[in-house]
Amino acid sequence: MKTLKVHSNQGVYDIYIGEHILSILDDVINPMDIDSICIVTDSNTEEFLPKFFYELKNLNIPISTVSFSAGEENKNPETLLYLLSEFANKNLTRHSLLIALGGGVVGDITGFAASVYMRGISFIQIPTTLMAMVDSSVGGKTGVDLPEGKNLIGSFYSPKAVIADVSFLKSLPDREVKAGLAEVVKYVGLGVKSLYEPLLSMDYEEIIYQSCKKKADVVTKDFLDNGERQFLNFGHTFAHAIEKYYKYTRLNHGEAVAIGIRLAIEAGISLGFTDVKCKDYFEELFSKLGISTKLEIPVIDIIPLMVGDKKNTVDAINLILLKDIGEPRIVPITEKRLKEIFR
Amino acid sequence: MKTLKVHSNQGVYDIYIGEHILSILDDVINPMDIDSICIVTDSNTEEFLPKFFYELKNLNIPISTVSFSAGEENKNPETLLYLLSEFANKNLTRHSLLIALGGGVVGDITGFAASVYMRGISFIQIPTTLMAMVDSSVGGKTGVDLPEGKNLIGSFYSPKAVIADVSFLKSLPDREVKAGLAEVVKYVGLGVKSLYEPLLSMDYEEIIYQSCKKKADVVTKDFLDNGERQFLNFGHTFAHAIEKYYKYTRLNHGEAVAIGIRLAIEAGISLGFTDVKCKDYFEELFSKLGISTKLEIPVIDIIPLMVGDKKNTVDAINLILLKDIGEPRIVPITEKRLKEIFR
Repeated sequence: MKTLKVHSNQGVYDIYIGEHILSILDDVINPMDIDSICIVTDSNTEEFLPKFFYELKNLNIPISTVSFSAGEENKNPETLLYLLSEFANKNLTRHSLLIALGGGVVGDITGFAASVYMRGISFIQIPTTLMAMVDSSVGGKTGVDLPEGKNLIGSFYSPKAVIADVSFLKSLPDREVKAGLAEVVKYVGLGVKSLYEPLLSMDYEEIIYQSCKKKADVVTKDFLDNGERQFLNFGHTFAHAIEKYYKYTRLNHGEAVAIGIRLAIEAGISLGFTDVKCKDYFEELFSKLGISTKLEIPVIDIIPLMVGDKKNTVDAINLILLKDIGEPRIVPITEKRLKEIFR
Repeated sequence: MKTLKVHSNQGVYDIYIGEHILSILDDVINPMDIDSICIVTDSNTEEFLPKFFYELKNLNIPISTVSFSAGEENKNPETLLYLLSEFANKNLTRHSLLIALGGGVVGDITGFAASVYMRGISFIQIPTTLMAMVDSSVGGKTGVDLPEGKNLIGSFYSPKAVIADVSFLKSLPDREVKAGLAEVVKYVGLGVKSLYEPLLSMDYEEIIYQSCKKKADVVTKDFLDNGERQFLNFGHTFAHAIEKYYKYTRLNHGEAVAIGIRLAIEAGISLGFTDVKCKDYFEELFSKLGISTKLEIPVIDIIPLMVGDKKNTVDAINLILLKDIGEPRIVPITEKRLKEIFR
């Protein structure tokens, strides 16, 4: 088992990474001053509940559960309010602990609910997808979507611990695994070249450890996302627009990120900003991982959808481009200029 | 004009207290890095908007407004989501500024909306009631009610500035003024004896300054409300139960607090904990201020409603009792014992 300490605006917490490590839950929860636990799952992860009750059998406090229908389309205020009402009905107090057991949606919405229920209660995150393990274990970004935009409401709120048990990945569909790997390729772009080998050998513990470490380094310097943290958006401004174009169906987040990385490289090369060798480097890596970066619609169709991204100031799209591998920069560009590039 | 610096978990901000001081808005907003403003009012305070547009006429940025129906019954998730959708429709960005113009409800809900819109944007509070000026200018508690309980969801989130313009109080109904004064009597109980004279002479600037200063002292030591801050709940555990009993109609918060202070003193005396002279002291003060402390139902009827208060741990009601004036203590007491006292 590997352990990583993460600094957040609510103190320090540990990420535990390993296989069949749920038994540490007891040790993690025992020192906490809590009076009850509520486990939040969605319809995909309910099946893991029996395993949990087993691991928690020695804790002498009430344990309840609440579940909602899986899917990004349910990451909305209605589900949030449903959870909050359930917490109230179950008489959760300020000393209750939430456990988010699931992928990114469960983590995001449970974290947000934890941050606002009675103005903030503790939560532990147990990600069950590779994407959630490498992306949402660090950074404290919680939220739900509004009809007007993704993650339009949320908070910066960190868990008390993250337990990334890679044994969950065994039952994860191949498509979901690749989605997570695409997110990891982003960290390679940001300079973690030591991820290259573990990616090819599917060494999940190492992949998760190194990705979380890189993200933690960046986030610690800029928790509230006003500067360097925006580098983590490499490939994501395109990705968000692609996901928006498809109304969050057709492609998952990781698939959109893979395409987004390719487009960010191409845009950077067109602008004479990005070293041309980056193109081959990422093409080869994606191909080795069996990840497609093909966009089936003209790039120009997604550009208007990049304008509303909340990372942008009013006039320009803030792209994250690489000068070279490991050298990301924030490059403001107008919609007009970007259209010219991809025409 | 008086100015008070307040430390919060989001840095330091100023409270400006004076008469006809809205003209300082320009100076307050100018140094801020913002691209647009949205003023939030309710149906009670919409009438002040023209005054505001006048004061803001020199700021060269877009100003929009959004308003909702006044009343505690509208401090709910539906109103919150309405505001958040409006912000999105008005294209507010992470660099937009909200101005909460109104009483406690407007302040609480706007502060909460500010804390979660795009994971947090800036807001300025312009309280228009005495209660809001003395109570919600400090402490960063935001929130809305759920059917299951008051302020059951919310956040700790502080404004960038508070402008308490006492000229608003001239048009405030006498009943609302007295509600604010009852909250100020609480600070006398917590030891600010220098509030006694200003209370009798209705010196609002001094009343607001001293109340905010006391609250700021307490809150700075315990922002997240795990210890000393609970002293601010003096009179409030009873008050919340009274308000709940009447379903937040009949009595306003201040009227309930006045009764709550009397009951906390009586309970403390019954327990042999509170100095008996406190009874006369507060009776005399309330009588001079023309504030009734009469509860028209048996005390025993409200006690069961004290159990669900979020300040409580599972087994006991945490009452704030005075040993003497200026000496508050947290005293856990069972529902049974409390019923015996008031039987």
